[in-house]
Amino acid sequence: MDAAELDGNDPLADKRSCFEIPEGVIYLDGNSLGMLPKSVSARVSHVVSREWGGSLIKGWNDHDWIGLPGRVGDKIAALIGAPAGSVIVADSTSLNLVKVLSAALSMRPERKVILSDTGNFPTDLYMAQGLISTLDKGHELRLVEPEDVASAIDETVAVLMLTEVDYRIGRRHNMPELTSAAQDVDILTIWDLAHSAGALPVDVTASKADFAIGCGYKYLNGGPGAPAFVYVRPDHLRGFEPSLSGWMGHAEPFAFDLEYRPANGIDRMLVGTPAILALSALDAALDVWEDVEIGDVRRKSKQMGDLFIKEVEARCAGYSLGLFSPRDATKRGSQVSFRCPDGYAVMQALIANGVVGDFRAPDIIRFGFTPLYLKYAEIVQAAEILERVLGQKLWQDPRYQKKAKVT
Amino acid sequence: MDAAELDGNDPLADKRSCFEIPEGVIYLDGNSLGMLPKSVSARVSHVVSREWGGSLIKGWNDHDWIGLPGRVGDKIAALIGAPAGSVIVADSTSLNLVKVLSAALSMRPERKVILSDTGNFPTDLYMAQGLISTLDKGHELRLVEPEDVASAIDETVAVLMLTEVDYRIGRRHNMPELTSAAQDVDILTIWDLAHSAGALPVDVTASKADFAIGCGYKYLNGGPGAPAFVYVRPDHLRGFEPSLSGWMGHAEPFAFDLEYRPANGIDRMLVGTPAILALSALDAALDVWEDVEIGDVRRKSKQMGDLFIKEVEARCAGYSLGLFSPRDATKRGSQVSFRCPDGYAVMQALIANGVVGDFRAPDIIRFGFTPLYLKYAEIVQAAEILERVLGQKLWQDPRYQKKAKVT
Repeated sequence: MDAAELDGNDPLADKRSCFEIPEGVIYLDGNSLGMLPKSVSARVSHVVSREWGGSLIKGWNDHDWIGLPGRVGDKIAALIGAPAGSVIVADSTSLNLVKVLSAALSMRPERKVILSDTGNFPTDLYMAQGLISTLDKGHELRLVEPEDVASAIDETVAVLMLTEVDYRIGRRHNMPELTSAAQDVDILTIWDLAHSAGALPVDVTASKADFAIGCGYKYLNGGPGAPAFVYVRPDHLRGFEPSLSGWMGHAEPFAFDLEYRPANGIDRMLVGTPAILALSALDAALDVWEDVEIGDVRRKSKQMGDLFIKEVEARCAGYSLGLFSPRDATKRGSQVSFRCPDGYAVMQALIANGVVGDFRAPDIIRFGFTPLYLKYAEIVQAAEILERVLGQKLWQDPRYQKKAKVT
Repeated sequence: MDAAELDGNDPLADKRSCFEIPEGVIYLDGNSLGMLPKSVSARVSHVVSREWGGSLIKGWNDHDWIGLPGRVGDKIAALIGAPAGSVIVADSTSLNLVKVLSAALSMRPERKVILSDTGNFPTDLYMAQGLISTLDKGHELRLVEPEDVASAIDETVAVLMLTEVDYRIGRRHNMPELTSAAQDVDILTIWDLAHSAGALPVDVTASKADFAIGCGYKYLNGGPGAPAFVYVRPDHLRGFEPSLSGWMGHAEPFAFDLEYRPANGIDRMLVGTPAILALSALDAALDVWEDVEIGDVRRKSKQMGDLFIKEVEARCAGYSLGLFSPRDATKRGSQVSFRCPDGYAVMQALIANGVVGDFRAPDIIRFGFTPLYLKYAEIVQAAEILERVLGQKLWQDPRYQKKAKVT
């Protein structure tokens, strides 16, 4: 099928109308920041003007702001195979990582190794490094190459901490298999689903993952810096005392006791006062998913990746682009990356010509596929524009050489 | 002067027009959640629709989202006597507390006592308790009565951790004196300015405070769950490694190194991706302060408190209300609390009759004075309505007995 036929048969085609799509932009960076769902502007505006402006302090009860982290959590739970009441939305992915990592380490006091891989997103590694220094008990962050994770699993490991889909290469770990192998030797598992939730089917219950975290602003379209989520397998909830023990995680926050006592449920992963404006934006953004089959999303995402690879390789054979992502779509998340000399400038030229992807050091150009708002025709167009940028050497323009603060 | 004269001579009178004031509400709870500044709705709407919706990922550079935590921090720095570049806005007050507390403890490894008082806001105590458990090095959280803090300062103490203005009673600690007494014996000081910033003159530079934190949604009017601020005295910045070591605190976040290296400046107190929608709301809210003299705010706040006490005591003498806050306005923050039997129901009845304060367990009714948007006439009216609620026993209505989730 060609792109037009694929678009004609796309069960998700009508979802595109749920998003604000800027004119002249082919947006292949929803893996970095999702597009704006149309429902969000009105909701945020309502929350600011009516709920905050009108109800003021009464908003906590009258609009159940206090329950918002759990309500938004339940919407995400439905996307990752988690039961209601097991996911909460708060803080950032980095902070949620340290919450579950400190919990997991406290549950395996006799073991000192955190096993992760060099493809993990750096902030997860940084947070682990900070926690190791803080604990000062001789823990080790053992980093192996992604393909060596399975063979590095042994009884010295306390926690296996992985991101399911590699942020640069798009390589997808086998979450059920690695979880099972880890649990065979009593290792606790933490899965960062930043590039998974909303992009592909995840089932934390079936895979028996112990802990999971993830991002609100990529495939979940919650807006820049949206709050993140955290999942704790329900049988673990009473197994640890939160290290970041804030009042919103207290069993009775409004008793104002002098002693911390954690809430029984997933609320114990809360710390400070919920960020109501940001949570409301994410809450509205998640309504887009109500009638979406995640299987349809995955099918379209794989086809889009395959189509992009085929088109790029056919058009750009002479330009020393190298496919960096797995060619096998089942082993990929929802993105395709190429190694590309002068990749930074090439990406700037692409953006200037209407194709928004992003660059990751040292030489990676990265394209994300978000099936809710992309058309197959755009994938072909994007490859055409890449061909033009390379063929006409548009990237050599000095404007595209200068690095911005954020890449 | 009577209320009308006071209002007539009020240099802050025109600031009221910068806020959305709901009809029929006398809002004496800006110490819990500030009112909505008119500038916020348009700004948030713009950030959602134009910046996020229009610029998408390019917003990080094109709108300098990445610099927003520091820009908003600089606005708050001006309100607390901190130099530019020494305050950053991120996360919650609770999380910022644990960032600076772990830093401070690491700078005094030979000492094991965190000194605080029983009037500190519970979440600060909870965070300290969680950190003590996590560190597992025999630290002690030593709580004394607020009036005993000065005499409890000795060489065993590593960190003096106090909230300047008590959230319930409104009692104000002498920040310069206690800081100086602590530093005389080499104690590091952490000041929680949640009930100070925007309410009274604070000068972290003159008082030589080591660390400070505070809240964005009280007197700074940033909206429910607004991000919080953190100040580190510039000479301390290189003195510790952040324990919550996220990518936004990295010296080069977009190098995606596998090893954490903290940024040189206050950026090292950042952790995850900045919450752009919430930061933008706070940023717009802070514009209200541009031409405000904090001395005017303090003068009006003290006069409002004095006026309220006088009016309430004159009108409600027969109803066993007891002034809980210091009578001396110089020893008070910007609030007045009374102990009041059946205080919860009394407050519900007050709210139903248009006077919004709040209740704090076990029996405290609390009234905050926010000089930017309150009129003296409202203070007198509020006392009249309290007199009516008590005199006509309006609080006995069964509707007012039932406790809400959030009090």
